[in-house]
Amino acid sequence: MSERTDGATGDWVEIDAHTRRRILAHAPAMMVVEVEFKPGGAGAEHAHPHLQSSYVKSGTFSYTIAGEARTIREGDAVVVPANARHSTTTETGGSLIDVFTPAREDFLPA
Amino acid sequence: MSERTDGATGDWVEIDAHTRRRILAHAPAMMVVEVEFKPGGAGAEHAHPHLQSSYVKSGTFSYTIAGEARTIREGDAVVVPANARHSTTTETGGSLIDVFTPAREDFLPA
Repeated sequence: MSERTDGATGDWVEIDAHTRRRILAHAPAMMVVEVEFKPGGAGAEHAHPHLQSSYVKSGTFSYTIAGEARTIREGDAVVVPANARHSTTTETGGSLIDVFTPAREDFLPA
Repeated sequence: MSERTDGATGDWVEIDAHTRRRILAHAPAMMVVEVEFKPGGAGAEHAHPHLQSSYVKSGTFSYTIAGEARTIREGDAVVVPANARHSTTTETGGSLIDVFTPAREDFLPA
């Protein structure tokens, strides 16, 4: 599905016991990914050269970017600068729609 | 709000009688925009150098990219290559979450 830009969705990939992700659309330059969290789920602090946005499809998240924490709720969005360290936790559980540019090649099936 | 990357949302801007948009987050390199359509709404064919994704928050859309039409529904997403002509129509009405890189400077308040 290396050039897929249609609405077909990829398979769910388990990240840990509380979180999983699936690719909604991608092209080499951009990828749209849904990340689903159970209550108490978290995304550990990390960074990548890809520019990212996160849109809150559902739930409430504490989202920290470059050391600055904020609370984002359903319908909110944030932009994560390239190489900025970021992490999130959610007591409610919920889903984020993450967009990356360029695509996260490391998310593609082997 | 030129460097805003938090969850605060911008004001709704009327595009036409059936559609309006608001900025959810933006940085110079990336912008997240919600576009809301009433039933029968449309986005006229256009193109821009910005790379774009569209995620369907709600509703069903006929979405044409570079002459290829497809139907996308709630939870689907597409990637629109830079400079590709694209358009959409929706009989149901609904909302798209569009992400642009770089930011659509033309969407910023004067």
